[in-house]
Amino acid sequence: MSDLTIWTYDWVPPGPRGFVRDLRLRWACEEAGIPYAVRTVPFDGREFNHLADQPFGQVPFLKEDGVEIFESGAGLLHLARKSEVLMPGDAAGAAETEQWLIAALNSIEMVTVPWWFLRMSGDADNGLTGWMAGRLDHMERVLGGQDWLAAGRFTVADLLMADVLRVPEVRAFGDRPATEAYIARITGRPAFIKAEVDQIAGFEAADQARA
Amino acid sequence: MSDLTIWTYDWVPPGPRGFVRDLRLRWACEEAGIPYAVRTVPFDGREFNHLADQPFGQVPFLKEDGVEIFESGAGLLHLARKSEVLMPGDAAGAAETEQWLIAALNSIEMVTVPWWFLRMSGDADNGLTGWMAGRLDHMERVLGGQDWLAAGRFTVADLLMADVLRVPEVRAFGDRPATEAYIARITGRPAFIKAEVDQIAGFEAADQARA
Repeated sequence: MSDLTIWTYDWVPPGPRGFVRDLRLRWACEEAGIPYAVRTVPFDGREFNHLADQPFGQVPFLKEDGVEIFESGAGLLHLARKSEVLMPGDAAGAAETEQWLIAALNSIEMVTVPWWFLRMSGDADNGLTGWMAGRLDHMERVLGGQDWLAAGRFTVADLLMADVLRVPEVRAFGDRPATEAYIARITGRPAFIKAEVDQIAGFEAADQARA
Repeated sequence: MSDLTIWTYDWVPPGPRGFVRDLRLRWACEEAGIPYAVRTVPFDGREFNHLADQPFGQVPFLKEDGVEIFESGAGLLHLARKSEVLMPGDAAGAAETEQWLIAALNSIEMVTVPWWFLRMSGDADNGLTGWMAGRLDHMERVLGGQDWLAAGRFTVADLLMADVLRVPEVRAFGDRPATEAYIARITGRPAFIKAEVDQIAGFEAADQARA
């Protein structure tokens, strides 16, 4: 019996609910049928109150049988090795899954998150806009030709890429029908819906405790 | 006998020489004593001339025995599994190495590259500056307390983190002595120097062909 725990904040404001990155790990566990518990660190003082667990003051991190892992991408790789639902067992399929997981983090999110950050800071037409359009256009071409990113089937790479792309401001940027259909299809999976509902319910319950 | 090939551009302007990301893969091979060949795709028309190999028109990608991998981070994970010089063989050491490799890509480079891009576009004091300072300050604290990121020894996580941090404009941003000492130490390794010299020599040779 494993003792997998996923750690998130004890509360966040309404804005990020449904988007805090512990959702990625919950979703992966739900897809694979891996039992897990959710535990929390305080949102107040987050920049410094759990640096021993997460050196940038962020969430999530996970703990299991004495191993502790921060970075949602690394947590997903850890979970993916537990279940072929998330990543094929053969070397070629695993390599393809890993490359697209890393593409989500380093070719797409590396542009979309800073773009989003500048936009939320009031700089909607910022210097990253052209770069982001180029990257999203490349993804639109890829997704126009295939249903899944890796190995011809759902993998953790789709989970992560869809989570990166589903940010409302990114989703509303331009008109990319293949990308939109992909996001709708991947986030329509029961495991995503369960993870999202659970995360939001947890933060709503914390509203009561803070009231 | 493997037939590992690392693919880069046939030429780049002087500015990025020594920083094109095939250097990461050369460096890892040099550390681990893995034989490799370098092959090229044309720099001219790069946005569209090799999309079947790299869907964002970038380099590097690697090929080996019929497996093809883009994203330098994914290529590093592939190489790291070939040699304990790059990543420990035990599960805990491997997990720690992976998490810091992904931290380099998604917690540091996700901020430093867009910041650098805006700065190079003429916006030196841009909206990402505060976020970058915070991330680099967290790294300075980490590197002030330990010589290596994972498993108490050199791993591919140090290779990647040092490569992310050594960008001159990032390195010159603020005064972080532990980070500076770390970059100097990791990029002082013979394998880095060999990879850097080889990359620059390749692009210089291409100058002749274009002249």
